[in-house]
Amino acid sequence: MPTSITAPLLRAYRGERPGRAPVWFMRQAGRSLPEYRELRVGTRMLDACLDPALAAEITLQPVRRHGVDAAILFSDIVVPLRCVGVDVDIVPGKGPVLAHPVRTAADVAELVAHAPDGVPPEAFDAVASAVRILLGELGSTPLIGFAGAPFTLAAYLVEGGPSKDQLAARTLMHADPAAWAALMAWTAELSAAFLAAQIDAGASAVQLFDSWAGSLSLADYERDVLPASTAALAAARARVPTVHFGTGTGHLLAAMATASDVVGIDHRTPLDEAAALVPGVPLQGNIDPALLAAPWEVLERHVRDVVERGRAAPAHVVNLGHGVPPTTDPDVLTRLVELVHVL
Amino acid sequence: MPTSITAPLLRAYRGERPGRAPVWFMRQAGRSLPEYRELRVGTRMLDACLDPALAAEITLQPVRRHGVDAAILFSDIVVPLRCVGVDVDIVPGKGPVLAHPVRTAADVAELVAHAPDGVPPEAFDAVASAVRILLGELGSTPLIGFAGAPFTLAAYLVEGGPSKDQLAARTLMHADPAAWAALMAWTAELSAAFLAAQIDAGASAVQLFDSWAGSLSLADYERDVLPASTAALAAARARVPTVHFGTGTGHLLAAMATASDVVGIDHRTPLDEAAALVPGVPLQGNIDPALLAAPWEVLERHVRDVVERGRAAPAHVVNLGHGVPPTTDPDVLTRLVELVHVL
Repeated sequence: MPTSITAPLLRAYRGERPGRAPVWFMRQAGRSLPEYRELRVGTRMLDACLDPALAAEITLQPVRRHGVDAAILFSDIVVPLRCVGVDVDIVPGKGPVLAHPVRTAADVAELVAHAPDGVPPEAFDAVASAVRILLGELGSTPLIGFAGAPFTLAAYLVEGGPSKDQLAARTLMHADPAAWAALMAWTAELSAAFLAAQIDAGASAVQLFDSWAGSLSLADYERDVLPASTAALAAARARVPTVHFGTGTGHLLAAMATASDVVGIDHRTPLDEAAALVPGVPLQGNIDPALLAAPWEVLERHVRDVVERGRAAPAHVVNLGHGVPPTTDPDVLTRLVELVHVL
Repeated sequence: MPTSITAPLLRAYRGERPGRAPVWFMRQAGRSLPEYRELRVGTRMLDACLDPALAAEITLQPVRRHGVDAAILFSDIVVPLRCVGVDVDIVPGKGPVLAHPVRTAADVAELVAHAPDGVPPEAFDAVASAVRILLGELGSTPLIGFAGAPFTLAAYLVEGGPSKDQLAARTLMHADPAAWAALMAWTAELSAAFLAAQIDAGASAVQLFDSWAGSLSLADYERDVLPASTAALAAARARVPTVHFGTGTGHLLAAMATASDVVGIDHRTPLDEAAALVPGVPLQGNIDPALLAAPWEVLERHVRDVVERGRAAPAHVVNLGHGVPPTTDPDVLTRLVELVHVL
């Protein structure tokens, strides 16, 4: 049962202006919802992502509650690493922790040997099952697939977890360009395969998250990162609309836009400025998550400004400039969807 | 014993090109040095900052070891908060922790009541003593004073510690502009008084660190932050050269440059691009700290490129694009100073 290609989200991703502006929220499925917190009791994060029924239910919760124009598969950046056997866990309050950080050419070689013949076709079966369950439930609401970008995956692998400025990853990039290239080729293949599995199962669009790309200079990004992101998105792009997003990436937007159909914009860059940086490219974003906790009239004024500036782009999917903060009042998100739908 | 106004650092800060390029490193005093780690055993961070003899000795260590062109007072962003009685500690591995986060207008009013008649003149006596000890030891090497910028101080106060994206601080900024303005007026006065105490005692230049400004859009920065930074630097600027620095601030550089004589540039923005963004302004920076751990030939090539691009500015003080990582081999920094001095 294919999602209608006339869904507002997909029309906007293709550069059209549907009758009403589509809206969804990064991290809409997750900690801001009491029904999510209840479901997650006793289940570790990665186990929840890899339980098809649970992941599907968590994905559906914000669609039911808020009436958003898209579901985004409940997952995590490091899920594909776990799926191919990398020893990674998500520690509450800390984030992903990898048992064996990848710091040298030998470490990279050992990592690549995890899957010498490429990613095994069954690696993402649990995720594909979740997508198939969702297709039966979502009706005309499109499902967006999700993957971490090759650089962000590589940064987690090298750092062994979250990091400030991705210092060790950026050192490896310069200290051993051949090892870096091998690592990026591996993560690019992993991202591509993870997206392909979701599209094969029925996802109508995909978003590549490069959480850490903002720590890079444009020169480093273009030389050592963008080719891998382009490769990760290439096959997906021939099949469904693709979105490319990172925070603190104002200086990288024009480069990022070459790899995808749509670019996500964080709260730092006004959409009219972004539209000038990437002419002709549909934009997604960029309500400041900090304003979700401000009085409604302050938030409403901001949202109207975001939508107004978004008119400078050929098309605009309303979203936040970053993920939903866990402390967000869900009713504010519901009201926000209602507002966007009448603007 | 006043520092010679012909010191290369001060000439470059005034926009001249001295015979040899001056170089120093943010966080040159601190964890990368074994002699520092030895001295700090058994002493908490803020106690070390407020022990004049100890702070002076730590400040001198990198000058002796590396032959850098400036000392920068060993201190921490939250030192002035502690000096006026705010309950703050620095927890190893975590950073500053404030006992009572400032979240509401009432919290701000209570904070301001800490010093109803302004900052008491004796608040910074320990820091001034450290500066006076240093003047007797440094000879012709200039001492740079140091303060956190009003926004970064405010963000610590609101968040209660380090934070990602300074979400709570940015919420308060929009949710209660009057409370925010009162908070920024208070932190601006504190920053200004902290800089004045260091200049009174003999500092030859000062640097304002806005660690968190990069999380702001230009519009928010110009409306709600820059006026306070300008106020914090105004009195200092009439007396000594002033430097203004933050990371991830490529989109804010032109605004930041209006508040100071010199702008510090992080590793993301090449110096020739920065020079075009702030024409006529001396620059400081911007060796990528990630390259300190790369093979010497890779680092050397990068440093030569930084110095070459720096020629686009009227003057250039070589520095890193961020602080020295704690894991840095100190011998690399010494060699780097030698290299810069012959370029």
